[in-house]
Amino acid sequence: MSKLVIVGTVAFDAIETPFGKTNKILGGAATFIGLAASQFNIDASIVSVVGGDFPQKYLDLLSNKNIDISGIEIVKEGKTFFWKGKYHNDMNSRDTLVTELNVLADFNPVVPKNYRNAEVVMLGNLHPLTQLSVIEQMECKPKLIVLDTMNFWMDNALEDLYKVIKKIDVIAINDEEARQLTGEYSLVVAARKIHEMGPKYVVIKKGEHGALLFNNDNVFYAPALPLEEVFDPTGAGDTFAGGFAGYIAKTGDTSFENMKKAIIYGSTLASFCVEKFGTERMESLSNKEVQKRLQQFKNLTQFEIELT
Amino acid sequence: MSKLVIVGTVAFDAIETPFGKTNKILGGAATFIGLAASQFNIDASIVSVVGGDFPQKYLDLLSNKNIDISGIEIVKEGKTFFWKGKYHNDMNSRDTLVTELNVLADFNPVVPKNYRNAEVVMLGNLHPLTQLSVIEQMECKPKLIVLDTMNFWMDNALEDLYKVIKKIDVIAINDEEARQLTGEYSLVVAARKIHEMGPKYVVIKKGEHGALLFNNDNVFYAPALPLEEVFDPTGAGDTFAGGFAGYIAKTGDTSFENMKKAIIYGSTLASFCVEKFGTERMESLSNKEVQKRLQQFKNLTQFEIELT
Repeated sequence: MSKLVIVGTVAFDAIETPFGKTNKILGGAATFIGLAASQFNIDASIVSVVGGDFPQKYLDLLSNKNIDISGIEIVKEGKTFFWKGKYHNDMNSRDTLVTELNVLADFNPVVPKNYRNAEVVMLGNLHPLTQLSVIEQMECKPKLIVLDTMNFWMDNALEDLYKVIKKIDVIAINDEEARQLTGEYSLVVAARKIHEMGPKYVVIKKGEHGALLFNNDNVFYAPALPLEEVFDPTGAGDTFAGGFAGYIAKTGDTSFENMKKAIIYGSTLASFCVEKFGTERMESLSNKEVQKRLQQFKNLTQFEIELT
Repeated sequence: MSKLVIVGTVAFDAIETPFGKTNKILGGAATFIGLAASQFNIDASIVSVVGGDFPQKYLDLLSNKNIDISGIEIVKEGKTFFWKGKYHNDMNSRDTLVTELNVLADFNPVVPKNYRNAEVVMLGNLHPLTQLSVIEQMECKPKLIVLDTMNFWMDNALEDLYKVIKKIDVIAINDEEARQLTGEYSLVVAARKIHEMGPKYVVIKKGEHGALLFNNDNVFYAPALPLEEVFDPTGAGDTFAGGFAGYIAKTGDTSFENMKKAIIYGSTLASFCVEKFGTERMESLSNKEVQKRLQQFKNLTQFEIELT
């Protein structure tokens, strides 16, 4: 079993979907990643920053999931990062209504000493230079560094983003971001171009259409579980990434075959995340429920064909 | 092994894609379905109509693939159905530039006598009443009737379409058509509503995102093979349907487990169809190539996870 370092936001979200709306609730990339990774009973540490307004109960919630929160800085006089968004009827697109960076504006991540030898690093969506700083604090070369990012940084900090991309092993981005990053419509060609930028593994998330894993000529396709209803997509991508990184940390195996399983775990966990608002579903999720849904994934995708 | 009846257009297509354009070439739903089904060395018959302008070499091409063409009526003084279309850059949408119904306007399908006991019937996209007429000509109840249709008939002949849908076993439509037919965005809910209209099996084609097979609570998801380049999507959906129906006819097995395999064969054949203009790739396709690509599909989708 390996240690996992997670860097990303711990935040307040306010969400509006066709099914309802919330006040400020617990959110943030690192929160969702941590909750997903906690399913694997590994040593995981979140590196983040919150303000004095951040409720102790949220910190306790993470601690109670065995997540090390010593790397979450609390800026007493500051306010916690806040995001407010509204999903359209198709749930595939959303408008950001409010983004208040608050304490995130001056965030200097500090990886706890006892996690600087972690073998797996999960860089949640943040400024590329913040992500880079975490990599530089590691005392041993990690077995696997996984990067999440988004189009915002391609628009506003592309050169910095290239620097991070050069140093990581797995990039996890969505299809539109892969197209923007490479200027290629074909995801196969886009993945090849991203390989050339550095990452040996490219994960392209396609939302309700699943996710692709590329490693040069090897490709794996995990569908998303067809759901009757997507209640709230917030955090699904982070949950996917957290499931992926958590499974790799748990098994300590970075082979392509094992990454396939990590993708399936990520998809499985993400399928729960969208069932309720925010982190609600992930907070109560049991291993028994996960195992049952993994069986559904097998039924969904596995077939027997004898070749002649 | 079962006999297969195919009804649909045998036509001229003129196609423009970002990669080039063609003059009038061989096209039509029944043509693509037939070529796909011919991979299984079954007794298959096309029921269709062409004009006196239809080249003998195209008929020979079908005959040489062991497709029975005695059900293709030739109206000497008439002209063959013609479709001209232009694909947009993303290859997922297209404009129809010309549709000339010609001899199709008065098409009365006649199923050859020795095919009226066929166990599998594949109804390619046509007016619902034409499809219904084929069903009514069958002398024994077929084991499986598969229906393809499109939004055009939902807009213009919905009541007739409902009548056909009630009488068939498998409907194969794309995601937008499933949404239009049911008024439901969620494909899971849409499939359930379509079940209530009659079909026990619902296949929802999602283009580059693959296809879903629903049978009440059973779901199967076959991804499309990620391709470097889609040269010409024309006929891909028909090829998928032809592969599906052909495999069922070959095996005579209509269980859900076998339909999974049929879906994989359909996806595999469709992945070839898009590699060249029109029917070109399907004309030269060998079983060895198909088997090799099936192996790629297995690599793409199969994984081992032990549940606890």
